[in-house]
Amino acid sequence: MGTVVALAGQVGGAKLAEGLQRLRGRDLAVIVNTGDDYEHLGLAFSPDIDTMLYTLSGRASASAGWDLEGESRALQAMVRTLGGPDRPLLGDRSTAAALLRSDGLRAGRRLTEITLDFARRLEIVARVLPMCDESVRTNVLTAEGAVTFHEYFNDLGCQPEVHGFQYAGAADARPSDEIFDALHAADLEAVVLCPANPYHAIRPIFEVSGMKELLRKRGAPVVAVTPIVGGKALRGTAGKMMRELGREPSPRGVAGEYLRLIDGFILDREDADCAESVRSLGVEVLAAQTVMRTMEDRVALARAALDFAAAIRERRALEVE
Amino acid sequence: MGTVVALAGQVGGAKLAEGLQRLRGRDLAVIVNTGDDYEHLGLAFSPDIDTMLYTLSGRASASAGWDLEGESRALQAMVRTLGGPDRPLLGDRSTAAALLRSDGLRAGRRLTEITLDFARRLEIVARVLPMCDESVRTNVLTAEGAVTFHEYFNDLGCQPEVHGFQYAGAADARPSDEIFDALHAADLEAVVLCPANPYHAIRPIFEVSGMKELLRKRGAPVVAVTPIVGGKALRGTAGKMMRELGREPSPRGVAGEYLRLIDGFILDREDADCAESVRSLGVEVLAAQTVMRTMEDRVALARAALDFAAAIRERRALEVE
Repeated sequence: MGTVVALAGQVGGAKLAEGLQRLRGRDLAVIVNTGDDYEHLGLAFSPDIDTMLYTLSGRASASAGWDLEGESRALQAMVRTLGGPDRPLLGDRSTAAALLRSDGLRAGRRLTEITLDFARRLEIVARVLPMCDESVRTNVLTAEGAVTFHEYFNDLGCQPEVHGFQYAGAADARPSDEIFDALHAADLEAVVLCPANPYHAIRPIFEVSGMKELLRKRGAPVVAVTPIVGGKALRGTAGKMMRELGREPSPRGVAGEYLRLIDGFILDREDADCAESVRSLGVEVLAAQTVMRTMEDRVALARAALDFAAAIRERRALEVE
Repeated sequence: MGTVVALAGQVGGAKLAEGLQRLRGRDLAVIVNTGDDYEHLGLAFSPDIDTMLYTLSGRASASAGWDLEGESRALQAMVRTLGGPDRPLLGDRSTAAALLRSDGLRAGRRLTEITLDFARRLEIVARVLPMCDESVRTNVLTAEGAVTFHEYFNDLGCQPEVHGFQYAGAADARPSDEIFDALHAADLEAVVLCPANPYHAIRPIFEVSGMKELLRKRGAPVVAVTPIVGGKALRGTAGKMMRELGREPSPRGVAGEYLRLIDGFILDREDADCAESVRSLGVEVLAAQTVMRTMEDRVALARAALDFAAAIRERRALEVE
């Protein structure tokens, strides 16, 4: 068995990464979106990295996967008492990562080093890698102008109509040495795009300068898992954004966003009748259960994705012969 | 009744300030030591200011006055899990003030404005004023070299022998306009030095450039309350420091530290036999109960200090006639 690289963001991405970690342990590297990172009260918050760390270490809340299990809000209550901002909500435990991250960055450490350190402390076996060490911010272009994703989500409640996206800083960012090594591994057998918002979770990773070329050069198949089931995003705003962008909120619509980047696409069994329309885009298609309610679901989807990639690899090998 | 200014630091200082606040409400201004302030994980901690705010707003822990009642340590536990420092301990609630203070300072606000804002939010009627807006750090000179008070206290457990003190930054600091107004008030009737370590709680306030002159110019008597009872500091290290500095750990020793700055000195009833030796230094002396176990004790000592100052004022007026 070789190594696996996952591209991920959000709760859905973390869940599938956990399934992959159960199967592959230290042979998994997860490249995590940092386009949604933000500063609050001078602290450096990396929501997708922290969701990943908490999920892979078994510390994520069962009911709200972006949060720590047993999180409390005593700090936030006192911030409010002292006249500080009401939102975004600070968790007592989750503030620790932001505090140490800010401190490390000020001391000149790379985000990747800081994240790998956290992962080691949390006894996570997979490698958790920020998409880059530079600051990249996903801006949402709306009728009222450009806002950061953080503002769109936190201050505007995802209300404004979305016209497009900008990935500020991406052109000046580079994949880290750690990402380079993971994608160049001789035994790399699959790259998995986890189910997450294509625009502000997966796409920012591709926008890091040189990332697409790195992914194209590798020999292993790239397979994506849909975040849209039955025309709806399981969580989050992928469906809303797709409609506002004039895209079809469907598996085909998602696959269309990844065109020329993926070899295979996994849609939900519920959407099995869409398989042909996705296949017509020139990608291989698998129908699987993509909704992950239990740990078994996460592992089963991870296995389906790896088996799918293996099948694509084998077919290619036959074609070459 | 006129206005009152208290100079304070530490838990003892906050307790007497609370007694004075009960008697004088908004006619009290408290000038608080900031020489013990420190940075931890990029946050600006002001222990004496926060102790004062929590005490004056009735939020201080009954058993550990520097802490908030009901404080929890979920943030600290997670900092430790992630490999961060074990000390100084972060409290979930108390971190809020440090976080908002750092954020305000970075935004260019003065420490005085930030502190007055906190006090307003906490519904404190007295004015709580940092001794200055500039950064002043009390350094402890030890056999092993100079360390900040924070290092001496937190990292070295107050172990090294003390040879002296340095107040770094004090020469470049100035009393704020708010302090100037409080000490220049036409109806100022007393200045009270609260019971606290003379070297790192009260003295730093005097060291702020221009502060001594401001205090000398005012017409109201200055009375000090001893932090040493029966040869021992009630809390903290005043006794140890006095011995190491070759001073007598006694009310007389403390009064000696305030010579030419005070008109009256309040020692504990337990030390009433020291009254003559203190009087021989040229200051008036009152014996009172200085140990404050209950709220009544705080109010009684506050009343004793104000009555003592009034008596000194009256005697002076008679002498002038």
